[in-house]
Amino acid sequence: MWLFGGLGGLATTVVVGARALARGLCAPRGLVSETELAAGLPLCGLDQLVFGGHEVREGTPAEAAREIDDAQGTLRRADLRRLAGDLRAYGAELRTGCLPNPGRTIARLADRELPTDEPLRAQVDRLCRDLDDFRARNRLDTVVCVNLTSTEPKLRLGKAHRSTAAFDRELDADRRAAVRPSTLYAYAAARLGLPFVHFTPSNAALIPAVREMFDERGVPYAGCDGKTGETLVKSALAAMFRYRDLRVLTWQGYNMLGDRDGAVLADAENKASKVESKDRLLSRILGHELHTHVAIDFVPSLGDMKTAWDFVHFEGFLGVRMAMQFTWQGCDAILAAPLVLDLVRFLDLARRRGEGGAQTWLACYFKSPLDVDEHDLHRQWDRLAAWLAACRDA
Amino acid sequence: MWLFGGLGGLATTVVVGARALARGLCAPRGLVSETELAAGLPLCGLDQLVFGGHEVREGTPAEAAREIDDAQGTLRRADLRRLAGDLRAYGAELRTGCLPNPGRTIARLADRELPTDEPLRAQVDRLCRDLDDFRARNRLDTVVCVNLTSTEPKLRLGKAHRSTAAFDRELDADRRAAVRPSTLYAYAAARLGLPFVHFTPSNAALIPAVREMFDERGVPYAGCDGKTGETLVKSALAAMFRYRDLRVLTWQGYNMLGDRDGAVLADAENKASKVESKDRLLSRILGHELHTHVAIDFVPSLGDMKTAWDFVHFEGFLGVRMAMQFTWQGCDAILAAPLVLDLVRFLDLARRRGEGGAQTWLACYFKSPLDVDEHDLHRQWDRLAAWLAACRDA
Amino acid sequence: MWLFGGLGGLATTVVVGARALARGLCAPRGLVSETELAAGLPLCGLDQLVFGGHEVREGTPAEAAREIDDAQGTLRRADLRRLAGDLRAYGAELRTGCLPNPGRTIARLADRELPTDEPLRAQVDRLCRDLDDFRARNRLDTVVCVNLTSTEPKLRLGKAHRSTAAFDRELDADRRAAVRPSTLYAYAAARLGLPFVHFTPSNAALIPAVREMFDERGVPYAGCDGKTGETLVKSALAAMFRYRDLRVLTWQGYNMLGDRDGAVLADAENKASKVESKDRLLSRILGHELHTHVAIDFVPSLGDMKTAWDFVHFEGFLGVRMAMQFTWQGCDAILAAPLVLDLVRFLDLARRRGEGGAQTWLACYFKSPLDVDEHDLHRQWDRLAAWLAACRDA
Amino acid sequence: MWLFGGLGGLATTVVVGARALARGLCAPRGLVSETELAAGLPLCGLDQLVFGGHEVREGTPAEAAREIDDAQGTLRRADLRRLAGDLRAYGAELRTGCLPNPGRTIARLADRELPTDEPLRAQVDRLCRDLDDFRARNRLDTVVCVNLTSTEPKLRLGKAHRSTAAFDRELDADRRAAVRPSTLYAYAAARLGLPFVHFTPSNAALIPAVREMFDERGVPYAGCDGKTGETLVKSALAAMFRYRDLRVLTWQGYNMLGDRDGAVLADAENKASKVESKDRLLSRILGHELHTHVAIDFVPSLGDMKTAWDFVHFEGFLGVRMAMQFTWQGCDAILAAPLVLDLVRFLDLARRRGEGGAQTWLACYFKSPLDVDEHDLHRQWDRLAAWLAACRDA
Repeated sequence: MWLFGGLGGLATTVVVGARALARGLCAPRGLVSETELAAGLPLCGLDQLVFGGHEVREGTPAEAAREIDDAQGTLRRADLRRLAGDLRAYGAELRTGCLPNPGRTIARLADRELPTDEPLRAQVDRLCRDLDDFRARNRLDTVVCVNLTSTEPKLRLGKAHRSTAAFDRELDADRRAAVRPSTLYAYAAARLGLPFVHFTPSNAALIPAVREMFDERGVPYAGCDGKTGETLVKSALAAMFRYRDLRVLTWQGYNMLGDRDGAVLADAENKASKVESKDRLLSRILGHELHTHVAIDFVPSLGDMKTAWDFVHFEGFLGVRMAMQFTWQGCDAILAAPLVLDLVRFLDLARRRGEGGAQTWLACYFKSPLDVDEHDLHRQWDRLAAWLAACRDA
Repeated sequence: MWLFGGLGGLATTVVVGARALARGLCAPRGLVSETELAAGLPLCGLDQLVFGGHEVREGTPAEAAREIDDAQGTLRRADLRRLAGDLRAYGAELRTGCLPNPGRTIARLADRELPTDEPLRAQVDRLCRDLDDFRARNRLDTVVCVNLTSTEPKLRLGKAHRSTAAFDRELDADRRAAVRPSTLYAYAAARLGLPFVHFTPSNAALIPAVREMFDERGVPYAGCDGKTGETLVKSALAAMFRYRDLRVLTWQGYNMLGDRDGAVLADAENKASKVESKDRLLSRILGHELHTHVAIDFVPSLGDMKTAWDFVHFEGFLGVRMAMQFTWQGCDAILAAPLVLDLVRFLDLARRRGEGGAQTWLACYFKSPLDVDEHDLHRQWDRLAAWLAACRDA
Repeated sequence: MWLFGGLGGLATTVVVGARALARGLCAPRGLVSETELAAGLPLCGLDQLVFGGHEVREGTPAEAAREIDDAQGTLRRADLRRLAGDLRAYGAELRTGCLPNPGRTIARLADRELPTDEPLRAQVDRLCRDLDDFRARNRLDTVVCVNLTSTEPKLRLGKAHRSTAAFDRELDADRRAAVRPSTLYAYAAARLGLPFVHFTPSNAALIPAVREMFDERGVPYAGCDGKTGETLVKSALAAMFRYRDLRVLTWQGYNMLGDRDGAVLADAENKASKVESKDRLLSRILGHELHTHVAIDFVPSLGDMKTAWDFVHFEGFLGVRMAMQFTWQGCDAILAAPLVLDLVRFLDLARRRGEGGAQTWLACYFKSPLDVDEHDLHRQWDRLAAWLAACRDA
Repeated sequence: MWLFGGLGGLATTVVVGARALARGLCAPRGLVSETELAAGLPLCGLDQLVFGGHEVREGTPAEAAREIDDAQGTLRRADLRRLAGDLRAYGAELRTGCLPNPGRTIARLADRELPTDEPLRAQVDRLCRDLDDFRARNRLDTVVCVNLTSTEPKLRLGKAHRSTAAFDRELDADRRAAVRPSTLYAYAAARLGLPFVHFTPSNAALIPAVREMFDERGVPYAGCDGKTGETLVKSALAAMFRYRDLRVLTWQGYNMLGDRDGAVLADAENKASKVESKDRLLSRILGHELHTHVAIDFVPSLGDMKTAWDFVHFEGFLGVRMAMQFTWQGCDAILAAPLVLDLVRFLDLARRRGEGGAQTWLACYFKSPLDVDEHDLHRQWDRLAAWLAACRDA
């Protein structure tokens, strides 16, 4: 398992959690792959997972874990002292990432010494070498790659992104404006034929040119943007209004978050990527247009304890207007980490079953599922359950 | 359509709404039977429905409607002045109900002059006569009966309620402690072979003895307790936690309501029936036990604008606890009235198709669906949709 | 009483309410000037008030009132049919307003035919003539003017606004960029020596040049921006945290509103005026800096039923973080109208007592009280109560 | 400082917090006595406080602290390891309490071996001896006693409680039904002339007979029931509605709490004491009657993180109804501990100033302040500030 953004809050929580589970320090919770639904499937064991990653900031996994626990108190049960060796081992597998055209806010976060004049081709080669070495050194069947880097500003896509051939010419010409960091990460995974999870809303990662490479090699991938909190609730709740023909006039969401995620989204150009990913699904589920908007504000004191307030205004019998509101208080990394572990294990299984391309049965994990128009969580869940059942029967 | 509790807020809203729709005063909203899902089915037209009912309180439908509108402003679009004639016609079809062993609070509400010494058998005969006359006078194919009376105190059920034969002996012996008002209403419908909707949680209506009569006659019926607000949301939302293996530790609900419903539920013995109906479903959907309770308080100023606050405390990855809360502000009669209209039209269709007994495909309409263990709204909805599709294909 | 913005929701509610009270159609509620605190003071009677105003949109008061009631149902108890004559009389006293440099959004709202080339001086003269005629025709002691026009984009103030002499040169030179509509309204009132209430956040009304005119003439005035909902709650609640030395880390507010107010605030340049007025007070009351922001979104379906959600994150003993959140659901015009009536009656009393200049004892009515640094509602209230007591003792 | 209920969550938090502050492990927060308002007053230093107490359960302070931190994570910053010695010292000063007639639920909690046949007089003598020894051993000026025991069922008060003479006869006759544990604790403090803080709602502690003893000896005391959360907010917010003549129709509160406090309040007879203390204040502040009720439910998963939802329904201009709701999420012991420290230091100062009897200027600390009818937090605060100012000026 290879984590792009390896010292981020989510990546750190993934590694800490997986190791704590492997060592029996706490019970599994939040992992579909550990429930009855997945019982009997030949999934990679949690204790068999080996971790590495790319990162552009300085620091060690132990420091990152300590920082999370000081701010949120969420890693207490993982008993960080007993994981000291595991975190050192993970730190030894972290490599310097890449940072081409990241936008001003992400650029400010980076503090590892990055060669600023390294050509794009050289960057890709370096990333691939890191991945190859990791696989060889650890004698792994495969490496499932996961993009957990910060939400990037939207990349303007054009002809050059539409085919591998065209995009290769951009790389050869070293046109940095044509890429974001996530583009190179996804490209590297595709070139090596490694399964890929795109867990953020950045539109630069799974451009058509890169998807073409995955598709041609028959490699499974999934995305985009993990569905962890407010959007998850929306996708679970919206159908209720449709069933009852209660017309939703307005659905507003107000999101607050702190930490690095929040700081990045405080930049309007990064926020735009996120909001677009959150705004879309309601009209699809409800089957009609409505007034809807998701606002996001940076609130440092909250850290990773994302707090969202949603207001739903709807019209019923005789045109009477009624309202529902909810507040969601969830720790984002804690909600997301088990999804990452599920996705890695499921993609690995898909790979072994020879299933390549976009894995649409994983739609329930994403705010903007690839090639899937179904946003209703319950329908999405049926697809996941059906695939798992088919695997078991096979 | 015959409404037991014919001057109550819900019955009045049903009649006002159906007539307003029939006269084109407003657009249908909240009715599944008017959506695409039911398109093409040979349902009874809204303008073909004729209304009558039993009632134990004094008053006229016009007064009842005016009272609702003054308190809630919910019938404004129905333009009550233009429905004056319709409401008078409905008033002319109202008959004096029955009130055997209703409990202290319901007894206090009644103000029509009720013959207190009328034997149970005579009461049943009288109810049947009213229904027969209504059908004959209006030349109706059938009369679908709907129980909309106040939530009764729980009836202690015993051997005497287990078979028609045993129960008939109770009636013959005029044992009033063996019945509640809803028992006689359901019994009368069953004796006449009329479809029956049980829209309240009272356990006295569809006792085994009465169900035996419906079943033997092949008459369709459905219940219990319309799922209109907080419980609807719960049944839509709970599956989300199960999908993600987020363990719900606690789910508390605090409900406030005013008007006659609230006043009745302020009596602990009536409230018990309701709470039981609301408390059950979560552990069924979640698949595990949890700490859960529904509190109900009488708040006169709210009238029928039911306001509920729910708090969900759940545990995720690494045992971290998180929370969700929601506030539901819904007008109960407005939410319930279209369900009643749907149920009547669907039961009528079932009758014509020769489908008798408990109609389990209507589970999504009820908090405590008869003979159905599935409380997940989405699975329940699938059953409804499947039945409607089957009807269309037939 | 003269209302700038005379057909707006608030002005209409003021007139309807005052006349309904004068006719005894409903009981006073929300008026300090009708409580015991003001008992015995020689205030102008509610039934003695005469209404006129300037407006830039077409329409009649009856239409405006009907529109409000259709959308919100808030004027039902005023029995609009019985006020038909009163509303016609008010309509007869409405005159065409002015619209110099109003910003794009307000410009779009206007539909009365306004002479676009009328020089600023001519506009002022026209406004003054309207006011003079109104007073003469109705034989009034005085006319208290109230600015209820839409929130304008911020006016960039400079040297030209700092003294009457300098500002008069701008008017003479017909420099429209130096004014907004509210500037001319306030200027006209000041020229005529009429008491003035500035009920909106627009910074263009009470510029130093205009205040100089009021001050020199010894005319009382008050502002800015009526404190009606979310900000009112903040100013009542914030002191609690200070008393207990609970350090507020974050206080976020998310506001939704519809109708014309909301449409105007959906324009970022108008919104800026409002947000500034709402953001300031917390650090003043708490005595320390904090992370705070007020977001405002336009939600058409809500109409005037303003809905705000506030989140307060605070730190207590041993650095433990805790939270409070509240939702405010208030009809803005209904909350504001009695404040306008209070302010007019109190300013009139101040005038008769010979108290000129900014009336700081009215601070509790405003989000940004003129010349007052005290934002704690309770301290502000003490000042109002003290002034009223002094008037009574006098 | 002597804590009755010395191993409870609040007592433990008080001791841990005071020692952490004394050792500079964290900054003061939540203590009025550490703010500018108290600057320059000759208060007992936090590092001069010595702790002892009575307790009826087994355990050590270190265990109690560990349990709190495991459940809530609230004592992390106090660095429990560095306080090990302090907690041991406190443990050495804990003595076996008394348990006469405590009600079934509190009886179940006790597990120290308590002599069940010890006469009341002997119990009192034993308590007094413990207090005397503590004072002598630690060479203290005085011992301020604080009742932090669980909320007891209401004691039926009669003639026997009205005077010291009468009550002494009850003790002599060993009539256990005439007392609760808190009665003996308060009696012991009164007999020794020690200042006393009654921090719970139990009505058995400060009975007239005991108050007579304090009053005669000129000893200061204060109570009842610390105002820490929901009630604090109410008392800060309610005045706002009165100022604006917004008539509150309904104010409902729904409280959830876990831990030992919650378990005790799950017993209806203990809950009654609490609810009464919470229900009273609103009509006093608002100046009119309203529909109000406080519901309390036991929710184990919340531990000490008390969560309350309040709903306020109010009527404004033209009779329009509007609503406000708030959710309070506060850790009760964290909110209460600094109040206890303030009260002890302030009572000690009052003692040195020779001020005996009920200290009404401490009203802002209590839900049911002794001899005070003022429940408005702001007026209460003014009294505290005035007293502190007077002390400084003296």
